Amino acid sequence: MNGADMLCDVLLVNDIDVCFANPGTSEMHFVAALDRKPQMRCVLGLAEGVVTGAADGYARMADKPAATLLHTGPGLANGLANLHNARRARTPMVNVVGDHATYHLKHDAPLTSDIEGLARPMSHWVGRIESAAGVRTRTEEAYREAQMRRGVSTLILPADAAWGEVQPETLGPVTLPQPPAISADLLSAAGAALRSGRRAVIILAGRALRAGALETAGRIAAATGAALFSQTSDRTARGAGRVAARPVPYNVDQAVQALREFEVAICLGGHAPVGFFAYPGKPGAMLPADCEVIQLAEHEHDLAGALEALAAEIGVRGDAPFVAGRFNQREIAAPNGVLDADSISVAVARALPEDAILIDEAITSGGRLTALSPGLVPHDHVPLTGGAIGEGIPLAVGAAIACPQRKVVAMQADGSGMYTVQGLWTQARENLDVVTVILSNRAYAILQGEMRNVGVNNFGRNARRMLDLDSPDLDWCLIARGMGVEAARADTIEQFIDLFGTALTRKGPFLIEARI
Amino acid sequence: MNGADMLCDVLLVNDIDVCFANPGTSEMHFVAALDRKPQMRCVLGLAEGVVTGAADGYARMADKPAATLLHTGPGLANGLANLHNARRARTPMVNVVGDHATYHLKHDAPLTSDIEGLARPMSHWVGRIESAAGVRTRTEEAYREAQMRRGVSTLILPADAAWGEVQPETLGPVTLPQPPAISADLLSAAGAALRSGRRAVIILAGRALRAGALETAGRIAAATGAALFSQTSDRTARGAGRVAARPVPYNVDQAVQALREFEVAICLGGHAPVGFFAYPGKPGAMLPADCEVIQLAEHEHDLAGALEALAAEIGVRGDAPFVAGRFNQREIAAPNGVLDADSISVAVARALPEDAILIDEAITSGGRLTALSPGLVPHDHVPLTGGAIGEGIPLAVGAAIACPQRKVVAMQADGSGMYTVQGLWTQARENLDVVTVILSNRAYAILQGEMRNVGVNNFGRNARRMLDLDSPDLDWCLIARGMGVEAARADTIEQFIDLFGTALTRKGPFLIEARI
Repeated sequence: MNGADMLCDVLLVNDIDVCFANPGTSEMHFVAALDRKPQMRCVLGLAEGVVTGAADGYARMADKPAATLLHTGPGLANGLANLHNARRARTPMVNVVGDHATYHLKHDAPLTSDIEGLARPMSHWVGRIESAAGVRTRTEEAYREAQMRRGVSTLILPADAAWGEVQPETLGPVTLPQPPAISADLLSAAGAALRSGRRAVIILAGRALRAGALETAGRIAAATGAALFSQTSDRTARGAGRVAARPVPYNVDQAVQALREFEVAICLGGHAPVGFFAYPGKPGAMLPADCEVIQLAEHEHDLAGALEALAAEIGVRGDAPFVAGRFNQREIAAPNGVLDADSISVAVARALPEDAILIDEAITSGGRLTALSPGLVPHDHVPLTGGAIGEGIPLAVGAAIACPQRKVVAMQADGSGMYTVQGLWTQARENLDVVTVILSNRAYAILQGEMRNVGVNNFGRNARRMLDLDSPDLDWCLIARGMGVEAARADTIEQFIDLFGTALTRKGPFLIEARI
Repeated sequence: MNGADMLCDVLLVNDIDVCFANPGTSEMHFVAALDRKPQMRCVLGLAEGVVTGAADGYARMADKPAATLLHTGPGLANGLANLHNARRARTPMVNVVGDHATYHLKHDAPLTSDIEGLARPMSHWVGRIESAAGVRTRTEEAYREAQMRRGVSTLILPADAAWGEVQPETLGPVTLPQPPAISADLLSAAGAALRSGRRAVIILAGRALRAGALETAGRIAAATGAALFSQTSDRTARGAGRVAARPVPYNVDQAVQALREFEVAICLGGHAPVGFFAYPGKPGAMLPADCEVIQLAEHEHDLAGALEALAAEIGVRGDAPFVAGRFNQREIAAPNGVLDADSISVAVARALPEDAILIDEAITSGGRLTALSPGLVPHDHVPLTGGAIGEGIPLAVGAAIACPQRKVVAMQADGSGMYTVQGLWTQARENLDVVTVILSNRAYAILQGEMRNVGVNNFGRNARRMLDLDSPDLDWCLIARGMGVEAARADTIEQFIDLFGTALTRKGPFLIEARI
C-alpha cells in the first residue's frame, strides 16, 4: 500500500467517510486510493468554494467531520472564504491539500505556492506530511486537532508522500481527550451574578444552541429572570417546544438598544458580542461599557455540560420549568399582496416541514422567519457565520448529504448565491433533497443600505454599477436548469405559495426564483 | 476630501482608470469616492475570481495596471487563484482590499482575518495603509512596486483610513526608475556561447514574446543557428510575418526530447524550464543535466533591449534576416468529419480575424491551433500561466475592456470554465466583444490522462465521480443565457463552422457550446 491508501484508512477508521473533492494532477494517487475504498463517498464540487462550504454544512449537521480534497495552493485558495465561515462556525474538518512532490518544490514550477501561508489564516491547525512514513501520524494529528479544537485542520500531502510505499498497520480510532473542565471560579462567579439581582443576560453560541442545552438555559432563565440571547452559530435548534434565545441584532444601534439594560453577561461558546463592522462614532462592543462579562465556556468546552453545571450551581433542577415556543404554525394566515421578503418568509414559515434544515443566506431578506420560528415545527437553522458570502448553496449540499431523510430549505439571496452557483450542479448530481428559494432583488441590497449609512443617497453611475445586479437580470431558472436542477419562477406571492408547496411534496433539488 | 478620494486620485493620476470590483460594507467610502470619479471605469464581477482574472487580462493587453476592489480577507481569498496566475504572468496590478477600521480589529469581528497572511503568497508587494494621512504615500508605493517588479501589489485599506479627512494635494505621476541594466558579463557569456558552435537554445518568456523582441530573437537565431523556444507567458505575438518560437511542451517526456540536444541555454524572462508536475522516475528539469544555463534577463529587465544588446554583442544588425511565419490561412482546408478539439481548432484557425486576441484555457484541447498559428493573421495568444484553472472567462473580460476594437476569441475547456462562469454576466453587462468556445467534453480530461499515467486504467465509481462532469451534463447554452449571453450549441463540425462564422460578424458576447 502507499501513503495515500494509509491516509484513506486513517480517515475511515475515524469515521470520516465523506470526501468533498476537486482534485488535480498532484492528487492522482490519492484519487486512485479513494477509488479503492468504495466505503468513502466522494462528492465532486465544480469549484472549491462548493467543496469547503459543503464540508462545513455536512459537519454542522452530521456532528462529525468530512474530509476535503483540494489541489495545491490555488485549489485551497478558492476554498478559503468558506473555510473562513467554517472557522467562525467552529466546524471540525480535515482538508487534504495536495502539493508537488517534495523534491520538485525547488524548481518553483508554475503551480508552486506557499500552501502553509495560505492555509494558516483560515485554519486552526496546519501540518505538512513529510513522507509516506509520516502519513499515519500526521493524519491522526489533523483529525485529533479538528475534533479537540472544533476547527479546521489543513493537512498538506506532497505527491511523493502519497505515492511512497508504507507498511500496512493495524489502525484504530484516535483517542480523543475529554473536553477541558469548566473553571470552578467562573462557575461560582456566574452563579453569584445570577443570584445577585443584577440584570443579567446569558449569551449562547455554538453547541449551546442545541435543543438540550437551550432547555437547560431556559430553566436557568425562568428561575433567575436572566435574559437569553444567541449569537450567529453553526446551527440553532428552533421551533415549538424549544427554548428560543433572542438573536443579537446585526444592526449596531439595535444591538446596543437590545443589550443596554444588562449589568452582567454570561457567555458560553462565543465571546461578548461586537459590531459586525465599525461605523464612525458608533461603538464596537455591543454590551454597555460597565457590563461585567463572565466568559464561562469556550467552543472547546462541553457547553451543554457547562449549562447543567451552572443550573446545579444555583439549584435549578433538571425538571424545573422553562418557557418554550408554542406551536402556532397552522394559525399563520396565508400572505397576500406583494411578493417580497416578508411575504415569502411567512409562506415558508406556514409550510415548513417537520425537522427541516433551514439554510439561511438571505442577507437582507431574512428577519421575519426568525420572528415566526418559535411557533413552527421543530427545525434547525443553519446560517452564514463568518460573513464571507457565497456559502448558502454549498451548505445545503453538505446538510443534505449529512441528513438524507430531512428536507433542506435554503433561503438564498441572489448576490451571494452567484458566488458558488456551481453547487447547484452537485445538488443535481447527488439528487439532494433541497428546495432553494432565490430572493432575487437584483442588487447587493445590503450595500445599498450601507451606502445610505455613509450619507450617499443619490447613487451615480459607478455606485450603481457596483451595487446593482441588473442589466442584464440574472435568469436563475435558466442557470439552474443548465446545471440540471429543476426550477420555476414566482412573480406573485400566490405563485410562490403554489411552487413552494409543490417543491415540498417531491424529492430532489428544486429552485424557485422569487422576483421580489 | 477623505482618504478614499485621495486613493482614487493617486490611481487616476497614474493612469489607472479601470477598477474591477466586488465591494462590501468596509469599502463603502471607497465606493462613494469612486462614484465621484466618473473617469474611473468600475466593472463589477459577481465573484472575485472574475475580478482578479479580469484585472490580469486587462493589464496583459493594455500594458498598464488596473485596480481591483476586494472586500476584506474572504473577498481577497476568492480572488487569490487568479492572482496566482497574474503573479506567474508577471502582470502589474494594484489590489485594493478593504479592512475593518483600525480600532475595530481588536474585537475579532466575524469578518476579521489575517489579510496580509492571505495576500503574501500571491503578491509581490503587500502594504497596509495606517491612516488617512498615509494613503497617498502607500498607494504610490503600491503602484511603483507593481510597475517596477512587474507584479501584484496588494494594498490594504482600513475603513477609517478611507473615511478619514485628508488635505488636498497637487499630485503627479509617480516617477518610475529605469529597468535594471543587463549584466555585461552575462551578455558577453551569452555572445560567446552563441559564437562557440555549441548547440544553443534561446528560451523566451514574458515581454520577450512581443512582436519586436521576437523579431530580434529571430535575427539572432538566423545568424547563429540557435533554436528559439517559448515558455507560457502573459501574451505571445503570433501569426504571419512574426517569428515563431516553439513552445516548450507541457508533457515531460516530450519536453525532455525537444530539448535534449542543447549544450547551452540562454534564458530571457523565465528561468530554465521545469516540469509542471513531478512524476516518479522522471526529471524535474527539462534541459539536459550538463546543459549550461545563462540567465540573461529577468522579467524586471527590458527584455526587448536585452535581445538587441545580445544581437549587437554578436554583430547581428537590425536589418539582418529572420524567419517569419508565412501567411497561409486561406489555404487551410475546411475541417469535416467529427466535431473534436482538432477540427474545432482548424475551424477557428481558418476564420480567425486580424488582430484577434486568442484567450486559451482549452487545457487538453489546445494543441492544433498553436501549430497552425504561424500561418494565420497576426494575433495575440493569451494563455493560462500559473495552472490555476478558471481564468479563461475573466481573462476575456479584461482583454476585451483593454482592447475594445479587437475581437476576443476564448477557447475554454468546460471543467475550468465552470470555476468562474460568473464572468459571462460581466461580458453581457459590459457588452464585450467576446466569442467563447466551450470545448465541452464533460470531463476533467487532463486528469483522466494523469490517472492513466499513474497506472489506473479501469476507473471505479469514486474516480469516475471525481473526474467525469456528466450526470447531469452541463447545458452551457442555458447557463450563458441565464447570465444574459447569447449562446448556441454545435454537435457537428458543420454547425460549429456556421456558428463561429456568424459569431464573428456580430459585436458583443456570444458563446458556442461545442459538444466534443
